[in-house]
Amino acid sequence: MLSKPIFRSFIILIAFGYSISPLLCQEDQQAFYIKSIYDYSLTKAKVFDRLSHLSENIGGRLTGSKNAEQAVEWTFSELKKLGVDSVWKQECMVPHWVRRSEATVEICGSNNQYISLNATSLGNSIGTSGELWEAEIIEVFGLDTLALLGEEKIKDKIVFFNRPLDPTQIHTGRAYGGASDQRTRGPAMAARFGAKAVLVRSLTTLIDDVPHTGVTVYDEDGIKIPGIAISTKDAETLSALIADGEKMKARISADCGMEEDKLSHNVVAEIRGSEFPDEIILVGGHLDSWDLAGGAHDDGAGCMHSIQVFETLLALGYKPKRTLRCVMYMNEENGLAGGKAYAKASNENNEFHLAAIESDLGGFTPRGFGCSASDEVFKKYLASFQSFEKFLDPYDLHLKAGGGGADIGPLKSQGGLLIGLRPDPQRYFDIHHTKNDHIGMVNKRELELGAAAMTSLVYLIDQFGL
Amino acid sequence: MLSKPIFRSFIILIAFGYSISPLLCQEDQQAFYIKSIYDYSLTKAKVFDRLSHLSENIGGRLTGSKNAEQAVEWTFSELKKLGVDSVWKQECMVPHWVRRSEATVEICGSNNQYISLNATSLGNSIGTSGELWEAEIIEVFGLDTLALLGEEKIKDKIVFFNRPLDPTQIHTGRAYGGASDQRTRGPAMAARFGAKAVLVRSLTTLIDDVPHTGVTVYDEDGIKIPGIAISTKDAETLSALIADGEKMKARISADCGMEEDKLSHNVVAEIRGSEFPDEIILVGGHLDSWDLAGGAHDDGAGCMHSIQVFETLLALGYKPKRTLRCVMYMNEENGLAGGKAYAKASNENNEFHLAAIESDLGGFTPRGFGCSASDEVFKKYLASFQSFEKFLDPYDLHLKAGGGGADIGPLKSQGGLLIGLRPDPQRYFDIHHTKNDHIGMVNKRELELGAAAMTSLVYLIDQFGL
Repeated sequence: MLSKPIFRSFIILIAFGYSISPLLCQEDQQAFYIKSIYDYSLTKAKVFDRLSHLSENIGGRLTGSKNAEQAVEWTFSELKKLGVDSVWKQECMVPHWVRRSEATVEICGSNNQYISLNATSLGNSIGTSGELWEAEIIEVFGLDTLALLGEEKIKDKIVFFNRPLDPTQIHTGRAYGGASDQRTRGPAMAARFGAKAVLVRSLTTLIDDVPHTGVTVYDEDGIKIPGIAISTKDAETLSALIADGEKMKARISADCGMEEDKLSHNVVAEIRGSEFPDEIILVGGHLDSWDLAGGAHDDGAGCMHSIQVFETLLALGYKPKRTLRCVMYMNEENGLAGGKAYAKASNENNEFHLAAIESDLGGFTPRGFGCSASDEVFKKYLASFQSFEKFLDPYDLHLKAGGGGADIGPLKSQGGLLIGLRPDPQRYFDIHHTKNDHIGMVNKRELELGAAAMTSLVYLIDQFGL
Repeated sequence: MLSKPIFRSFIILIAFGYSISPLLCQEDQQAFYIKSIYDYSLTKAKVFDRLSHLSENIGGRLTGSKNAEQAVEWTFSELKKLGVDSVWKQECMVPHWVRRSEATVEICGSNNQYISLNATSLGNSIGTSGELWEAEIIEVFGLDTLALLGEEKIKDKIVFFNRPLDPTQIHTGRAYGGASDQRTRGPAMAARFGAKAVLVRSLTTLIDDVPHTGVTVYDEDGIKIPGIAISTKDAETLSALIADGEKMKARISADCGMEEDKLSHNVVAEIRGSEFPDEIILVGGHLDSWDLAGGAHDDGAGCMHSIQVFETLLALGYKPKRTLRCVMYMNEENGLAGGKAYAKASNENNEFHLAAIESDLGGFTPRGFGCSASDEVFKKYLASFQSFEKFLDPYDLHLKAGGGGADIGPLKSQGGLLIGLRPDPQRYFDIHHTKNDHIGMVNKRELELGAAAMTSLVYLIDQFGL
């Protein structure tokens, strides 16, 4: 298919008697196609409207909740409306954690006056059955400190994990990764030494009053104790009081916990490839979110990016050579049941995902993509992947080693390339897992550009392979 | 000066008997230095606090206003406190435009009901002396339409320029550049055909209720008519009414205009170079802003970035080989008197600016730098400039041809390289020249990263030359 401007270029070249390099012309054609992907994405895409609906009308989508099921039904119907070859719901059993009422934390020093902190229960955490528990606070900065202190110092205390994110990390994801063990494993580890409960400093470089939830993971068959996040500003206040020599205690309550597992679903849509139908290119995000807000950036954006990839390609009349899949994964936040179920079914069907692209770092301006693969094939794929940069550099997109996504991770053994969209990371952890992850924090153009970047990469991989 | 980690690297290399490539070691040293620039910028820099003070305590800094003079005094004292070699105020005569009271625009169709629009007078515009003027509206989409319509159709009308920004431009600056002639030249051109006044669609891709001011430029000795911007949403409403066949009229008022020129100042600070003192590397932004808000992004950010470059280098104990200048330019918005005065004085002193770096596109995450120069030297400089990318790529900074800045433009004839910081451009024109350009729209880390990027580039040019 020749677009009008390409046709004109041909005429001009022929008229002036130039010898036409077929390669150059093909590359011109691809460049024009990417331009038309961007034009569509910035003028006609429904990605922002869809995200508004998902985030604000459906709202927070905790795995196992009614909202999550509503999101499954709605995305199923949206994908169906696009006129793809097939759409299906893929069953997966999911955990069903519920926050019955929000945690409370009050701290108190020698003056016996209780100060209320900004707090939220960690996902998967147990509560205090609504009772008030009180205990002395012990501050630590890392999991390894627990063993040094030992049961003697920790037993019956409330352990306060307060290691801040490293602000000198340019990529905030690395700063997050360097501090998140306190939240994911702090309660389990502190329980081993007899702690009563855990308070965790919220995982953000921002110093403010907003607590950040997120998953905690107990030891299987281990003792479970409540895990509660407090805001960074409150963590600083509490730490300063302790540093002043105050013996601080906390009075906490929380009502939350696991209920029966539930049946839930991934939503999968497919456009069958015309030349290499057995090579699958996947785009996806996760449909579940935390419950404190509508999960606009995490990960409504990634889901709506992925649907937009399909909408744009279909609207432009594109016929893929390879099979394209769009996957709305369930339960990334507190179990990854959807990611595992998808990979299991795919392996059982002897499928091969040539490339899987996940968007799960927000709807901010895209900076490029990162990739990973199994050791044997990584070098080969990286070179092919980075050869696309010439097409994407005009859009300020850069292709780097390193990246992927939690949901697509289980596909690694298939030997394809795992790719993560890299949106600008500076603002993501300001709002991550908080009440502020709503549509008001999303810039329409930035979101559209993310969808355009993903569509362009899918197009390039489909055209050239890897 | 060897930092501790470099020293350790040396020891390790020597201990293992590797032959040390001097070039590699030098590059390692530069990479380490840039890391220390980033570490300082992300943990100790005062750039955000300074911007808060400038934008919120001093406030909007219209050229010739008391606030602008206060900003001159304050930045002079801040630069002095840093302990630079010298700081001076450089005189320049500036225009003194005043907005005595905000413009009003009401539109009315056949139902004789007046609807009030969101409006603001354009900078440098005359008003209606506070009187209400009423006239029929004629909508046009470009300056060239005026000649086609001619005096017959335009005389005594209010011309409504309504060409939107092109949303398919990835770099919003280009979209702005493609529509801004309506604002800068619309009133002057419409006046030639006898128009009574001009309404201009605000220069943003965002559809909202916020009017954007900005300079308009009259013909010298030409007739002056009022120019008023209306919000994009109001422009769409008005255009839809006209498209419906309504004969629309507008009732406008505005009280604004030029007063006597005033004496004002650029603020210049210098750190003298130890090896090549006659090669100047300049960093700068413009201190004046529009009056509708504190000019946090435009261009408080650029000024505070530039001061931060000096603070960081001095705090790290850096002794530059070349002479470094930090310039707070006056009057970029409506005259460029400061930029011209600086270049004039520099030329009179036979100075040579090897590189001038301007930050005037906001305090958003930096994407890199763009550069320009006179034709003769551009190719040479571009190659040197882009050779720095290996140091800056870990910070996701990319170096491109094209760019510079209004204030540094007059230095072009000196034959050096003109460089513009390229912050992410997606949100800039959402708030540009509006009441929303305040500190609440600035992300601290993004601002700090801009300062770190500029400091790193100054360091690299100082180390390697061009």
